[in-house]
Amino acid sequence: MPAAIILAAGLGTRMRSALPKALHPVAGRPMLNHLIAACEPVFDRIVVVVGPGMPALEAAARPHATVVQAERLGTGHAAAQAAPLLADYPGDVAVLYADNPLIPTATLRRLLARRQEAGLALLAMRPADPARYGRVVTDAEGDVLRVVEWADAGEAERAIGLCNAGVVCAPAADLFRWLAAVRAENAKGEYYLPDVVGLAVAEGRRVVAEEAAEADLAGANSRAELAGLEGLMQARLRGAVMEGGATLVAPETVFLSWDTALGQDVTVGPHVVFGPGVTVEDGVEIRPFSHLESCLVRRGAIIGPYARLRPGTEVGEGAHVGNFVELKAALLGPGAKANHLSYLGDATVGAGSNIGAGTITCNYDGVNKHRTEIGAGAFIGSDSALVAPVRIGDRALVAAGSVITEDVPDDAMGIARGRQAVKPGRGFKGKGK
Amino acid sequence: MPAAIILAAGLGTRMRSALPKALHPVAGRPMLNHLIAACEPVFDRIVVVVGPGMPALEAAARPHATVVQAERLGTGHAAAQAAPLLADYPGDVAVLYADNPLIPTATLRRLLARRQEAGLALLAMRPADPARYGRVVTDAEGDVLRVVEWADAGEAERAIGLCNAGVVCAPAADLFRWLAAVRAENAKGEYYLPDVVGLAVAEGRRVVAEEAAEADLAGANSRAELAGLEGLMQARLRGAVMEGGATLVAPETVFLSWDTALGQDVTVGPHVVFGPGVTVEDGVEIRPFSHLESCLVRRGAIIGPYARLRPGTEVGEGAHVGNFVELKAALLGPGAKANHLSYLGDATVGAGSNIGAGTITCNYDGVNKHRTEIGAGAFIGSDSALVAPVRIGDRALVAAGSVITEDVPDDAMGIARGRQAVKPGRGFKGKGK
Amino acid sequence: MPAAIILAAGLGTRMRSALPKALHPVAGRPMLNHLIAACEPVFDRIVVVVGPGMPALEAAARPHATVVQAERLGTGHAAAQAAPLLADYPGDVAVLYADNPLIPTATLRRLLARRQEAGLALLAMRPADPARYGRVVTDAEGDVLRVVEWADAGEAERAIGLCNAGVVCAPAADLFRWLAAVRAENAKGEYYLPDVVGLAVAEGRRVVAEEAAEADLAGANSRAELAGLEGLMQARLRGAVMEGGATLVAPETVFLSWDTALGQDVTVGPHVVFGPGVTVEDGVEIRPFSHLESCLVRRGAIIGPYARLRPGTEVGEGAHVGNFVELKAALLGPGAKANHLSYLGDATVGAGSNIGAGTITCNYDGVNKHRTEIGAGAFIGSDSALVAPVRIGDRALVAAGSVITEDVPDDAMGIARGRQAVKPGRGFKGKGK
Repeated sequence: MPAAIILAAGLGTRMRSALPKALHPVAGRPMLNHLIAACEPVFDRIVVVVGPGMPALEAAARPHATVVQAERLGTGHAAAQAAPLLADYPGDVAVLYADNPLIPTATLRRLLARRQEAGLALLAMRPADPARYGRVVTDAEGDVLRVVEWADAGEAERAIGLCNAGVVCAPAADLFRWLAAVRAENAKGEYYLPDVVGLAVAEGRRVVAEEAAEADLAGANSRAELAGLEGLMQARLRGAVMEGGATLVAPETVFLSWDTALGQDVTVGPHVVFGPGVTVEDGVEIRPFSHLESCLVRRGAIIGPYARLRPGTEVGEGAHVGNFVELKAALLGPGAKANHLSYLGDATVGAGSNIGAGTITCNYDGVNKHRTEIGAGAFIGSDSALVAPVRIGDRALVAAGSVITEDVPDDAMGIARGRQAVKPGRGFKGKGK
Repeated sequence: MPAAIILAAGLGTRMRSALPKALHPVAGRPMLNHLIAACEPVFDRIVVVVGPGMPALEAAARPHATVVQAERLGTGHAAAQAAPLLADYPGDVAVLYADNPLIPTATLRRLLARRQEAGLALLAMRPADPARYGRVVTDAEGDVLRVVEWADAGEAERAIGLCNAGVVCAPAADLFRWLAAVRAENAKGEYYLPDVVGLAVAEGRRVVAEEAAEADLAGANSRAELAGLEGLMQARLRGAVMEGGATLVAPETVFLSWDTALGQDVTVGPHVVFGPGVTVEDGVEIRPFSHLESCLVRRGAIIGPYARLRPGTEVGEGAHVGNFVELKAALLGPGAKANHLSYLGDATVGAGSNIGAGTITCNYDGVNKHRTEIGAGAFIGSDSALVAPVRIGDRALVAAGSVITEDVPDDAMGIARGRQAVKPGRGFKGKGK
Repeated sequence: MPAAIILAAGLGTRMRSALPKALHPVAGRPMLNHLIAACEPVFDRIVVVVGPGMPALEAAARPHATVVQAERLGTGHAAAQAAPLLADYPGDVAVLYADNPLIPTATLRRLLARRQEAGLALLAMRPADPARYGRVVTDAEGDVLRVVEWADAGEAERAIGLCNAGVVCAPAADLFRWLAAVRAENAKGEYYLPDVVGLAVAEGRRVVAEEAAEADLAGANSRAELAGLEGLMQARLRGAVMEGGATLVAPETVFLSWDTALGQDVTVGPHVVFGPGVTVEDGVEIRPFSHLESCLVRRGAIIGPYARLRPGTEVGEGAHVGNFVELKAALLGPGAKANHLSYLGDATVGAGSNIGAGTITCNYDGVNKHRTEIGAGAFIGSDSALVAPVRIGDRALVAAGSVITEDVPDDAMGIARGRQAVKPGRGFKGKGK
């Protein structure tokens, strides 16, 4: 029954942002929530350390507890703020960083398992370019002797490839005792979390390092590094959906969210963006330049190109949504088609109905939204406006170019357009000028 | 007069697809058809080995012959299925794999030429990461002694960089005699095609290896590898159109089909997708986010951004197609313009005509498609609907907002819209609420 | 008070283009103008050497002087064409290449500073793949002894990593004396600029090499290399805006122009293209598939997805521009919204007004463009056409589906649409056929 402290108080000054660093999203979810999601399967209790005046961060951490680090005096100081909640905790406590959103649950399990062997376990990595990291000095058996900051390391220590990722795990009582003993006698006058390693060794405890992949421990201190995290996360997500049987014609141009679910034999063309909350069933084709958010696309549907599915939309089995079509809180029945330049908002379209090019549901009167209901087997002629609330019946027909303001019953035709006049000799002379 | 056997029976289990592996497309064409196209210039006869119940694969192979491998007993067994058609063939027979769609015709010619020097020729490569491939063991003169599977290779053999690509070529009589002699005495109980190499050597035949580039021999056993093939093919296609004098501002975001033809001084902006069948003449500008399929764009036209050209479309010299405009089976005359939010389906637009923003051709009555004809020098006012079949004459004018249901003669004006009423004091109070 | 000669006469034969090579754009600006912009802060006089019949190049060079190289006899000959304008110049003269658009001003300053130490300074680099470049042979102190063309280099010289970038700087009198002494005794019969190095050394002058990064000296002789320059420039521009506090979710899919200005906490989604002349203030969100040119987006606005902002557009604070919306010379007031499938051209929209889906300003009568003015707090019902010139008053309401041809006063409602008829039993039977 271990617990976790997540350090999220960092301002991320180099981000140059009004948003707390831990709330910057990766694959459609704040970094903090990625880490919390990785922690929840293995930690019984999670405490998030935030800075003062970060209500959005506290909200994002819910239902987990938060404590405020009033002054920013270093990572050791930050972790110590959790003492009121965790000092008497009867189990292990791990300390993690909110800007490590890629760390897998399996890695956390391995860290906890290694802690059983020793008084303290830490996460280490072997980065391709280790230059700036603290080094982990081990003995012949591989046990950790100390962690040396880059600035303090000698030449031999700098040659060490094993680097400190900053994550530690120890029994609560030990951890908080060591945290209380950390001193700020360094250039910045800060209390550094890695100093607990030295204190553990000084007490004669065995310290072990669990190695993890560099990519899994990647962090972000700048917008460029944030983009780097996004790239790593996208590679992971793309790999997973391809493994599951979806074709991404050009994976590098497809952007998934953390929870995007694609069925087997789904084909996704180049340049497609998935916001959070999208489920796509088997055999769906998503053509280029489509954008989907919080929607469900049923088997065999065809989406795009240039289709925008907004939240609350469900596209029925075998239905088609074509170019320059926006669906918002729209339910498109099985086999229905809306293929060209249309806006269907707050609308229900029955099975097999055809929505002509240029159809607009007028769902907003400036104050309230209203629904448009279209029955099954109906035909909405092109360039029609449906002024909600309005119902078009089953098998009903709306004549092209109509502005429909009243219900059209089942099997009826609705027509509402001006009568045509032709005026000879009043054609277009403009090109002659 | 050589012949080729193409092995296409593979299920591609790791693809997790209902589609036979060889039919998965690369650059808009099934892998099998890429390989067939590479083979046709050099092989007089092509036989495709398919699995049972793959009618789509047989259709894709046409007019070439197919034979069915009823049981999947390995690549040697698969190749042997072609014996009824090719055992008496009076020439060389090469065995190829349907999931090698990038192999160039020139490489096949080199393989055939090398066969003249020896009893059997095979294709080999030096992959950047050779680990999983079988190794080609050669003597001091470079002649092939044997092919060793990775699992069976000793340390010295694993250090060999030359790897077996699996492609072999030999006189028909020899090849089928060796195929008949291959034994399935291995872990999987399968008949392996590369075993013919050992049988050839055992008969005292000279065996030679023709080296090819790793990229030319790339295959795909998973969706991720399929995406890799697509990337290699796109790089090849992009390079070729740039070599031909087209600018791709951001080649990595432009997706071409195998048959995309771009003229000189064509400029293609970022994020453009070409489906099959597109020809673009000299000097055309294709702006970002455009999507073209089976269409012809004549000299000096301007396309996009966000233009969708669908099959059967021809854009005339110097014509403009702008944003959120869809053309389907539409002929746009020289100098004509359709610049904003329009759908032109089954339509003809004369030279120099202007199609206003929001113009919709209502080409579909739910049962049939009808044509819209617009003459030369006409002006279609914005937000008009043209209900087909309908003809707008030369130099005719359609008033903005009209729903046109009857022909408008040459030089005439057509108008069809409601008369405006203004109701004082009934404005919008919504913002005050 | 140094001067610069920019060699721009090259035909760029491998580009296969009717456009002079130096006019091919990178990040929305011709290569020549990038170089001129880098030169202007440090050179008091700039002379561009063009080929015969290149008026567009002369126009691009303005207000700087141009001289015509009538015959293409090599880079030394080209530089010598500037003699009539610069031979008596009382200062240093540097010779640069128009297809080096990435060279930073700082590098030019360093070149000029180094010239103070010696009789001639040149720019050199250490390319990752030095194979094809001329090598810079130096003595033990690092002074330049000679430049050896690749073709003439021996094995030891080819092992040198320091390569000649071709850029030289020397006092005007010396430079032109050496240029006059260059001989065309080589395979191509051309006068090579680098030969001045040997002439300077032969006169006993000290020659020094200033090293620059390979990327800063990149050039383009083909469309593929032009794409390479674009990639390098984009990487530089993306890095700068991220450094400034903008988030690019997927930087590799965002294309900036040389002058794109993004404020702090601007978020740019995947697949966004910025043409020249765009300024985006703090806190703006630009969603995927948006395309912006010559426009101003004020604080907190939301743009896209699929929004196209064309030149002359200003989007007010907190305003929204949504999908498939085109704005051209449109001023959208603070808090105004145009969220769906609309064209606003030559239009003014007051604060807080709502533009319904499918709204079209009919701004063009085939000869002239006219303006549409919409007041503050107005509500334009969906699928309306506004036939300009027309004014919709403050707090006015336009009924959905109207074609508005006359002004609607403040607080009034305008309505212009056909009356609806319903015809029972005349519904859509098509699906039954």
